[in-house]
Amino acid sequence: MSALPTAQLFDPRDPVFQVHEGGKLGVHATSALRDAADLSLLYTPGVAQVSRAIAADPTLAGVYTSRRNTVAVVSDGTAVLGLGDVGPLAAMPVMEGKAVLFKHFADVDAVPVCMETGTVDEIVDAVARIAPTYGGINLEDISAPRCFEIEQRLQERLDIPVFHDDQHGTAIVALAALLGAVRVVEKELPDLTVVVSGAGAAGVAVSRILLAAGVGDVVVVDSRGVLGPDRDDLVPHKRRLRDVTNRRGVTGAIGDALSAADVLIGVSGGTVAERDLMRMAPRAIIFALANPDPEVHPVVAARFAEVVATGRSDFPNQINNVLAFPGIFRGALDSGARRITEEMKLAAAYAIAGLVDEPTADRIVPSVFDERVAPAVAAAVAARVTPTPR
Amino acid sequence: MSALPTAQLFDPRDPVFQVHEGGKLGVHATSALRDAADLSLLYTPGVAQVSRAIAADPTLAGVYTSRRNTVAVVSDGTAVLGLGDVGPLAAMPVMEGKAVLFKHFADVDAVPVCMETGTVDEIVDAVARIAPTYGGINLEDISAPRCFEIEQRLQERLDIPVFHDDQHGTAIVALAALLGAVRVVEKELPDLTVVVSGAGAAGVAVSRILLAAGVGDVVVVDSRGVLGPDRDDLVPHKRRLRDVTNRRGVTGAIGDALSAADVLIGVSGGTVAERDLMRMAPRAIIFALANPDPEVHPVVAARFAEVVATGRSDFPNQINNVLAFPGIFRGALDSGARRITEEMKLAAAYAIAGLVDEPTADRIVPSVFDERVAPAVAAAVAARVTPTPR
Repeated sequence: MSALPTAQLFDPRDPVFQVHEGGKLGVHATSALRDAADLSLLYTPGVAQVSRAIAADPTLAGVYTSRRNTVAVVSDGTAVLGLGDVGPLAAMPVMEGKAVLFKHFADVDAVPVCMETGTVDEIVDAVARIAPTYGGINLEDISAPRCFEIEQRLQERLDIPVFHDDQHGTAIVALAALLGAVRVVEKELPDLTVVVSGAGAAGVAVSRILLAAGVGDVVVVDSRGVLGPDRDDLVPHKRRLRDVTNRRGVTGAIGDALSAADVLIGVSGGTVAERDLMRMAPRAIIFALANPDPEVHPVVAARFAEVVATGRSDFPNQINNVLAFPGIFRGALDSGARRITEEMKLAAAYAIAGLVDEPTADRIVPSVFDERVAPAVAAAVAARVTPTPR
Repeated sequence: MSALPTAQLFDPRDPVFQVHEGGKLGVHATSALRDAADLSLLYTPGVAQVSRAIAADPTLAGVYTSRRNTVAVVSDGTAVLGLGDVGPLAAMPVMEGKAVLFKHFADVDAVPVCMETGTVDEIVDAVARIAPTYGGINLEDISAPRCFEIEQRLQERLDIPVFHDDQHGTAIVALAALLGAVRVVEKELPDLTVVVSGAGAAGVAVSRILLAAGVGDVVVVDSRGVLGPDRDDLVPHKRRLRDVTNRRGVTGAIGDALSAADVLIGVSGGTVAERDLMRMAPRAIIFALANPDPEVHPVVAARFAEVVATGRSDFPNQINNVLAFPGIFRGALDSGARRITEEMKLAAAYAIAGLVDEPTADRIVPSVFDERVAPAVAAAVAARVTPTPR
């Protein structure tokens, strides 16, 4: 711990530190505690009746405990924003921020759970062990490829929704934005060639949801080039991704993939050169989602594409996960969903896109502050839940 | 899951169920989220500055995250109230109630963490893994003797306070009450013979704090009789307890222990017969702390003792852990304490007792609603903390 980098980074008078002072979350009681009578209801001896009833019928925990409305925002701090493996303490402000958004947009009581990292087994065991406390698990900022197995194994073990937002939240909002953008450029999903730059958590999920939505051709590119038939250096999750994408068998670099492509979706944090962008098809679409530095600056992108979107709030078409995750969990909690299915994710994307009546090049998604979004997503998600007794 | 016991236990019109509906806890943001400017401070991109600063200097997490004021109320549901091993879901209402008390009495943001039970290793690993989220760990309703090892090993691994309230909260308030009671009966701690009925979590901790406070003779009794030199059936924690108590080497049944004893402290949930109580010394003291059914009914106890206390709110001298735990953690969080030392526990007991100027037989401890208690305990605890850099 050297003094120099901290001193450079840390200024307690900076508004961002002032708003974080003391943390961003508080806990409160939902009933008044005024006197001994209240105490005997909220705590002993009255509470024993509630505990006994839940012991006899565990489904009552969904009615008479805070589990009903509480989501854990779980991270091991290994892939925080663009900062990388900064550990659980440094992940806390991000997870608290996420919890603030859950509450603000969808009245979900979210709590951070920032944990020491470990093996996949250790992370899965720890989360599964504490899961009875929560109605859902939002995984966040866990490095790839561990994040895939952690999510899958947790969802297999638990009967509450487990949702890795870096994957699925990004995928849902990217699809929603694409649904708006294709209306602007007058193209159809089955006819599209989409290049996804990045084969990490977001790249995998974006590619898969595009295919599920009916996009004709998805070509994925990682830092070494196109995930094509010639690649013998692929780790398992990239091999599996290659096997379901790239139907034309493209090989080479990103420029080869972008040749005549309709859409570029950047989720890599790298940069894409202008000489590659100029190979795209007419009426192209570019989503450069890396934050705060998009893969292509939106002013540059506009020279090669008719519709441009980023994750930034200071340009049009902000594609931000907050359009998805609050409503996703609101809908799941309200409907008693045990998992977030592919069908629910697609429904969420269509619900977001459906809130923009007449998309234009500058408005393909609703504003993140549009209060209709979370309820619309929640309703769409809940409508896809088949009620099952727990 | 049979319908009959639930139907007998569960009445949604009962006020105790009505006050629990939806759970008893909520989460809220401590700053306003009004617009894009707020969003960019509370979440991306601003939050990255805070994360970077904490990564460079982890002590900043104590200032700029909710960890600063958050305590996890951790249980595996194996020893809930007098109900026994009801599991984590049925433990939730109790842990939420505890969190309500933390907030009400000491403005501590406490969150339940109810976990599937497992081996000591598994519980310790899970709690240690998620510990970066919290400023302290309150262990609750974990069965003995596992609770002793779980607490000890967690405290060894973590640099935040770990406090098993069933042990130490009970011990602190029992000592506080005894300090008041001996003033009423005009006896001194070194001259006392105290019989502790119960050798579980509470019995062990009560016995140890009484010895630390200078009580002359402590004799512990379990369901098989006095923990004396003749007992060859003792599990390790009872053997260790026997080895530091019972200086006169008493053997036999509880009646033998009570012969000429000055104090009976019941923390067993069993009952004590009148023929045994009548053997106590003149000006005796009886604390019958089992809840809701004291080991001796207070009306009966009053026939054999000058001072009687229970855990119940409907009789004088309510001895309840809420007198201790909110202030203990308030003081620990405010002072940056890494553990709750024996000295801090003794200081807490003396602080509670010190709030009753002139103890009488009907008033040996302050009311649980006395607003002076938590601040006094917090100040006493914080004053015993030696500041150390983390």
